[in-house]
Amino acid sequence: MSWEQAWLKYQAVKGYLDEAYFKEVYTLEEGKIIENALAELRLATNKMFGAAIERVNHLPTKGIHLSLVSKECLAKEGFQLEEKNGLIAIMANTQIGLLYGVYELLRRVACKNKMALLSLTRVPDKELRMLNHWDNIDGSIERGYSGDSFFFENKQIVVNERTRDYARLLASVGINATVINNVNVKQEATEFITNTYFESLKKLVELFDSYGIKLFLSLNYAACMELGGLKSADPLDETVIAWWHERMKLVYQELPTLGGFLVKADSEGRPGPFTYGRNQADGANMLAKAIAPYNGIIIWRCFVYNCQQDWRDRTIDRARAAYDYFYELDGAFLDNVILQIKNGPLDFQVREPFMPLFGKLKKTNHIMEVQIAQEYTGQQIDLCYLIPWFKELLDSRTYCGEENDTIKDLLKGKCCNHFGRGIAAVANTGNSENWTGNDLAAANFYGFGRLAWDSELTSEEIAKEWICQTFPDEEEVLDTVSRLLLMSWNTYEKYTAPLGIGFMVTPHYHYGPNIDGYEYSRWGTYHRADHFGIGVDRTKKGTGYASLYYPPLSQMYENVDTCPDELLLFFHHVSYNHILQNKNTVIQHIYDTHFEGVKDVERMIQMWKGLEHKLPSKEFHRVEACFHKQLDNAKEWCDQINSYFYRKSAINDKRGRKIY
Amino acid sequence: MSWEQAWLKYQAVKGYLDEAYFKEVYTLEEGKIIENALAELRLATNKMFGAAIERVNHLPTKGIHLSLVSKECLAKEGFQLEEKNGLIAIMANTQIGLLYGVYELLRRVACKNKMALLSLTRVPDKELRMLNHWDNIDGSIERGYSGDSFFFENKQIVVNERTRDYARLLASVGINATVINNVNVKQEATEFITNTYFESLKKLVELFDSYGIKLFLSLNYAACMELGGLKSADPLDETVIAWWHERMKLVYQELPTLGGFLVKADSEGRPGPFTYGRNQADGANMLAKAIAPYNGIIIWRCFVYNCQQDWRDRTIDRARAAYDYFYELDGAFLDNVILQIKNGPLDFQVREPFMPLFGKLKKTNHIMEVQIAQEYTGQQIDLCYLIPWFKELLDSRTYCGEENDTIKDLLKGKCCNHFGRGIAAVANTGNSENWTGNDLAAANFYGFGRLAWDSELTSEEIAKEWICQTFPDEEEVLDTVSRLLLMSWNTYEKYTAPLGIGFMVTPHYHYGPNIDGYEYSRWGTYHRADHFGIGVDRTKKGTGYASLYYPPLSQMYENVDTCPDELLLFFHHVSYNHILQNKNTVIQHIYDTHFEGVKDVERMIQMWKGLEHKLPSKEFHRVEACFHKQLDNAKEWCDQINSYFYRKSAINDKRGRKIY
Repeated sequence: MSWEQAWLKYQAVKGYLDEAYFKEVYTLEEGKIIENALAELRLATNKMFGAAIERVNHLPTKGIHLSLVSKECLAKEGFQLEEKNGLIAIMANTQIGLLYGVYELLRRVACKNKMALLSLTRVPDKELRMLNHWDNIDGSIERGYSGDSFFFENKQIVVNERTRDYARLLASVGINATVINNVNVKQEATEFITNTYFESLKKLVELFDSYGIKLFLSLNYAACMELGGLKSADPLDETVIAWWHERMKLVYQELPTLGGFLVKADSEGRPGPFTYGRNQADGANMLAKAIAPYNGIIIWRCFVYNCQQDWRDRTIDRARAAYDYFYELDGAFLDNVILQIKNGPLDFQVREPFMPLFGKLKKTNHIMEVQIAQEYTGQQIDLCYLIPWFKELLDSRTYCGEENDTIKDLLKGKCCNHFGRGIAAVANTGNSENWTGNDLAAANFYGFGRLAWDSELTSEEIAKEWICQTFPDEEEVLDTVSRLLLMSWNTYEKYTAPLGIGFMVTPHYHYGPNIDGYEYSRWGTYHRADHFGIGVDRTKKGTGYASLYYPPLSQMYENVDTCPDELLLFFHHVSYNHILQNKNTVIQHIYDTHFEGVKDVERMIQMWKGLEHKLPSKEFHRVEACFHKQLDNAKEWCDQINSYFYRKSAINDKRGRKIY
Repeated sequence: MSWEQAWLKYQAVKGYLDEAYFKEVYTLEEGKIIENALAELRLATNKMFGAAIERVNHLPTKGIHLSLVSKECLAKEGFQLEEKNGLIAIMANTQIGLLYGVYELLRRVACKNKMALLSLTRVPDKELRMLNHWDNIDGSIERGYSGDSFFFENKQIVVNERTRDYARLLASVGINATVINNVNVKQEATEFITNTYFESLKKLVELFDSYGIKLFLSLNYAACMELGGLKSADPLDETVIAWWHERMKLVYQELPTLGGFLVKADSEGRPGPFTYGRNQADGANMLAKAIAPYNGIIIWRCFVYNCQQDWRDRTIDRARAAYDYFYELDGAFLDNVILQIKNGPLDFQVREPFMPLFGKLKKTNHIMEVQIAQEYTGQQIDLCYLIPWFKELLDSRTYCGEENDTIKDLLKGKCCNHFGRGIAAVANTGNSENWTGNDLAAANFYGFGRLAWDSELTSEEIAKEWICQTFPDEEEVLDTVSRLLLMSWNTYEKYTAPLGIGFMVTPHYHYGPNIDGYEYSRWGTYHRADHFGIGVDRTKKGTGYASLYYPPLSQMYENVDTCPDELLLFFHHVSYNHILQNKNTVIQHIYDTHFEGVKDVERMIQMWKGLEHKLPSKEFHRVEACFHKQLDNAKEWCDQINSYFYRKSAINDKRGRKIY
């Protein structure tokens, strides 16, 4: 299957005045990373200017100079770009810093920035910037909306030119780690830690290393039973411990630069330490000890909850689960364990409060997990540019009592005793020709990487960068696509589950509405709507979840009058006639926003149509087809939500619009 | 995989006084059918009495005599049993009649009937008594609840000893036709009409013929395109017509006794004549002409409806579809076409009115289709003995203006100009060791056959016959199992969708409750519940469906005060406070019946437990496990239905029971 180049297409830059800088490049460095940097420069200049840059063996009078320096401020991955008298110097402490510098430079060309007097320093503000792929060994992708896996085919690991292009895309935005297989490790994927797969994994590691990307693998916690034939996976059992030590020794003999492992344990049917009456730290530490000698890391997911809940029982709250399991274990994890915490307490909804563990874990390494695979946010059919949502999360104050108390401070390691370690995203790629199904969904892939590198970039800046590199250079294109991206999250929120209540999606598939789809189920995600009202009481009178936050957040959420509208139904069960802070009643807000959401999508289609003759036909029509499906979806959501609540509440829409 | 013998286990008959009749058998007849009859006698006598009957070459003084006679009253398949002076004479016009006589005789032994002065004549009252298997060539079964297919394995047709036992089960209850493959003909099953499968089909036909069973196959209407490479399947296209004539000639050269074909066209994504602007008669007749030279029959399903309906549109009514498509075509079908009409207008719900085509088709061959695969009636986990339901259907008067106007008269060919031809059931078998998953579900398999043969048998009689042959001979076993069977349909109806509204099941799977599961879907099966009431208006003010019946049924259904309670919500949208004929309100009836349904199941479990030491342990525990699952299911239905309607109506249960 052929594939495109996403934002690395290096479109011809017409009328660019600074082309002359890109004739010659000079460096003393050698090695695979430098080769990749130079190859990228050649490819880009050839495509942008019609002539590839030449590596010269002397410092040119006009050109580019890559050099290693020793500047503490640049740390391991940062770089400096300086233009002076015709020469652009790219400086870094490491070769990977130089590669990042090259990508920054090329991005600036694509966006037609001037080179004269260029002077900037860029250092990633988070240590771990990671993707999690949920690709299965059989080639399918769990929650994949863009074709099948390009990592796996016929139960084999594929390493080819597309894998290289994948690595280039990651490096170009600064992503420095990736997990290629599904956290639900099944079938032959359990055998990645055996001889069967070492050969192909070696090739992959070698390739990724040359782009500064650490390979991680998802691990089957029960591998000691499934592969080793042990009768137990008890983390305190000596035979279990011995098996893992031996196994990890073998793994690291073969793959010495492997980053480590991601583990989903005791969750949604996966095995884990709970089976043996042990806690999550027992499980994580046992594995961590086994790989500590090799500088390996265990990334342990906090998405642990009871998925056999009784819908009748209002005392159990899935939202509390991660907090309840992990807060009490703060400090119990080894240094080479990193907890991976979902952004919110449920599961990647269009709106959730942030997970209250953030700011509470003061002695445990952790990263935040977001999802750019649009499982609940339109599945890469509906446009939903998630960067503004991630920005809100990053900018959220935790009130943990330190000066820098936002989540982004935390993930940068600037508060909570430096235990924040970075950010991971569930990836949205597949083997479709444009990588992400909907072309516009690539903005989330790109944007996640950029935001992972630099929390201070704005959603608008990121959108613009991506558009410049992706679409023809026209003011109207830049403007329209940017507006489409920036309105899309809000639009999606309008026509789906209202006021923070979440879910209401088709069970299993998670696309399209099914208001009661999870209401009488075992999954712990309820809306509790009846004739009088709707919402989950998470105050002290309910599940007590609101109290898990630091004040003043705990008070703000606890109080129905101060709880933000967009999270009202997440925290409170209220009557349909409850007056929101926006002065509307809950029911009228539901009607209004749903009708608005459909109108928004209609407007988006009109906006997109205006670009028909300014965009390549293939891309234009691919996206247009998505928009039409999105409109159907929005209408279905609107009509089902409105009918559902009208039929239940018997309260008329005060504007008398059509409800079924 | 090993398998059991269902009701042909021929348990030892202790203390039976008439054993002496079963020492010798005499007949002049030869041939495969007679061989099978004699083999059955040998097997049965050996198992029941410990000594196999012997075939003797003279008329014995005490024993059995099989002989062909020529009596108009016995028709093709009937038989006579006469005991006189120690000799039991089995007489029939055909060998298959003799085989049926043998099975009747053995059934009477299993039930310990006396032989002295035995004198009876049995003639099947319906011509076609058929099973439809929805088995796929890959071995799976659509709506199969008892393992995989025993007809297909690895894309091959299997003919082995189990196939023979299957044929014996059919013949023992008088089933004389079967369709072995799914009406949704996909993959290699399309190739059954090619050389690829002729060899194995020949073996199957030969086996079935020797038990009086006509083999039919489901046909892919688009085979002329998929196999023949034609560009169209237009039934009026000369190349299409020619292709089918040629193809059928080949088929019947190889399989001269093949019964014919079953066709699902223009339904749920299947191809059909509508694609070419033709009607259903055009499609059926084209195929019928092609097989008429070989006495082949086309059975054409009437389950044709729009499965892309908009839930917002209340003018379309799926219940009308079969009537609207086929009523106007009455008389347009060739003589060797038989329409197969589902018992009700929706889809095998626990309660539906009968399909109004019955009694309206006066110039078209037709049979009724019922479903013993318990797709919507508990999936062979929940006990649901369907014979009482089928009896109600058969006994229903159509008011077609003739003296004998019930559906059973119709299917017997006794009214509507003899165009009624019989009955078919979607089968409930699979390759599990006991054939039907839940042992008690075999009562539906057995019962369908018996009822197909004789509409006048009562549900109780059939139950008793089946129990005698299946379980140890103990009064308490007979009594308890009989009571369990007879209460089960009513119990299932109590805890599932109320008052004839239907569906409310988990989409796709069709097991367990999902009240809104089909409410906002494209399938045309809605309940229209809102705060005020529930039900579908099928009166003249609504979809007009009620008027499709003859008076007085049309008036009875049209009028909310005369419409039977159990079908009220099928025909009328009423308020929750509407008073039923049983004096209860609709909402209180919903609450009451659902709590009752759970109590019934609890009672059933107690009843079953009382048999623990009277039944073989394996069977006891297999059924017990089903009952426990049924109780979970009943509780889930009860709580979800009651919570749903309480939350929507805000009307309290007047008995104050727990609703969530």
